Amino acid sequence: MRRSGRHHYTPVQGELDLRREIAMRHFELTGQRVNESRCAVFSGAQNALFSVSQCVLDRGDEVILIEPYYSTYPATFSSGGATLVSIPSSSSRNMQMDPEAVIGAITDRTRAIVVNSPNNPIGSVYAREQYEPVVKACIDRKIWLISDEVYLEMLAPEDRASPAGIPGADEICITVSSLSKSHRMTGWRVGWAVGPEELMRHLYNLSLCMIYGLPPFIMDAAAVALRMDVNIAGTVRESMNRRRKIVVEHLSSLPNVQLLESLPCDGFGDSGEGLIRISLGVKDELLREACRRIREFVLTLVKPRNADGGG
Amino acid sequence: MRRSGRHHYTPVQGELDLRREIAMRHFELTGQRVNESRCAVFSGAQNALFSVSQCVLDRGDEVILIEPYYSTYPATFSSGGATLVSIPSSSSRNMQMDPEAVIGAITDRTRAIVVNSPNNPIGSVYAREQYEPVVKACIDRKIWLISDEVYLEMLAPEDRASPAGIPGADEICITVSSLSKSHRMTGWRVGWAVGPEELMRHLYNLSLCMIYGLPPFIMDAAAVALRMDVNIAGTVRESMNRRRKIVVEHLSSLPNVQLLESLPCDGFGDSGEGLIRISLGVKDELLREACRRIREFVLTLVKPRNADGGG
Repeated sequence: MRRSGRHHYTPVQGELDLRREIAMRHFELTGQRVNESRCAVFSGAQNALFSVSQCVLDRGDEVILIEPYYSTYPATFSSGGATLVSIPSSSSRNMQMDPEAVIGAITDRTRAIVVNSPNNPIGSVYAREQYEPVVKACIDRKIWLISDEVYLEMLAPEDRASPAGIPGADEICITVSSLSKSHRMTGWRVGWAVGPEELMRHLYNLSLCMIYGLPPFIMDAAAVALRMDVNIAGTVRESMNRRRKIVVEHLSSLPNVQLLESLPCDGFGDSGEGLIRISLGVKDELLREACRRIREFVLTLVKPRNADGGG
Repeated sequence: MRRSGRHHYTPVQGELDLRREIAMRHFELTGQRVNESRCAVFSGAQNALFSVSQCVLDRGDEVILIEPYYSTYPATFSSGGATLVSIPSSSSRNMQMDPEAVIGAITDRTRAIVVNSPNNPIGSVYAREQYEPVVKACIDRKIWLISDEVYLEMLAPEDRASPAGIPGADEICITVSSLSKSHRMTGWRVGWAVGPEELMRHLYNLSLCMIYGLPPFIMDAAAVALRMDVNIAGTVRESMNRRRKIVVEHLSSLPNVQLLESLPCDGFGDSGEGLIRISLGVKDELLREACRRIREFVLTLVKPRNADGGG
């Protein structure tokens, strides 16, 4: 399909064509059947999260976040004056969301719960069984469940779970996603929110005075990307798994050490303290070399107490 | 200049290259000398206005607008909870800003004054003499002066005036502009705000959680557009002047009539009531035909009272 003259203002909620593709992809990924009137296009998932936050959270509200969270979350969800309530993950629970802890943090002022699986920065993946009690609590207590699923497509289909697909979630679940990770289109700034139509009306009003629509040619490219039967996410998944194994192989047997001076990881919430973040976004050989050096360095730290190197 | 691989995240305040071009263009248009650290790129002027509003206006503040104003203004400037204070323009004053009326509307709660010349929707152009007392009042009372200048380049150089160029305006003036009108790049969504460095820090924090930067290739195109020595604004100005003459020729001699059913023009503020907005954005022949029909129609309305057509 070729289009010319695509340089003018566009529909504020997004081009119909693109919203239809989003509705289909959303169904494929989450199991929730929606039509295009429940999909709104934004300038990236970050813009979608910000917009949702502006529309559902007000001063005096509480919003529950699960640590560690993506570093923009505190600013994004407190920007309208809401109070952040953080639920720490603990390494003893494999950094998983504990549904009981989340539900236990709900008060009369809770307006939204934010989940993000696969999680940035920690990579935890939540199962449908973890979502179910949270969805139920949100329905019962009329709380929004905001699910940031920008990494969901990176999982093998059988590993994917989304709260939106759980019966009853239709009226409380807002799903945010984008092409940044699944299609490596980070700089193209295309994301979306899928949610109840009532919310779409508010998102439209906000978009009108916030961004006034996306560039038409960017939405054309996004629609083509969604229509194409390419498995970029699968390719990225393979690289990530291979690189993850490299890191595990080199570092999993190392003892815990305490670094006097370290790069703080607490931009992701207090429970990031004491952890080290290793990016898998570099070539295998560079990652292997980095792991070798980290391993060597850590072993020099434990030598004084354990002369023959650690196990 | 060719660049490849321009598909990733970009600096949130905007590419340095583009901000330098903006600083130069801003100086050329306004006479205010700034460097790139005082320029922030946004997804269109609308996004810049929204962002400035978020950063400077809070609940309880008052913001002064001059009617008629662009239809997104009320939502944009009240989005953070500020109260709008409208100063109506009157056709007896040729729809001009009256500096005394603006200054008279200032109270202890006034946080910002918004000006827009050339004005959308009415086309009024303000002179430096009108800005001077307003700038002085803003400096004296520590009030932001937000100047939306997206149409400024459409004026012949000798007709342009900007409050930013007035001595002392450096610390209170925030200038918003874009490529949408000057370069007919409406759909590309490139705009900017120029203001004090202290404000830039806040705009950066907001952008980080609101849009997270613009697409790199869009900023490349914008920088090229600003660097190119093309006079698109001049070409548009000629067309607009020619078309304006067509409208004046056909319609200026018509009497005022009252339409029982009309498209309300009050999205631009109450003082838009009773006015009709005619777009010059169509080809000459179509505009001429439209004016002929409007003229014929209006003359049928006045016929009963004035059988030989109006003068």
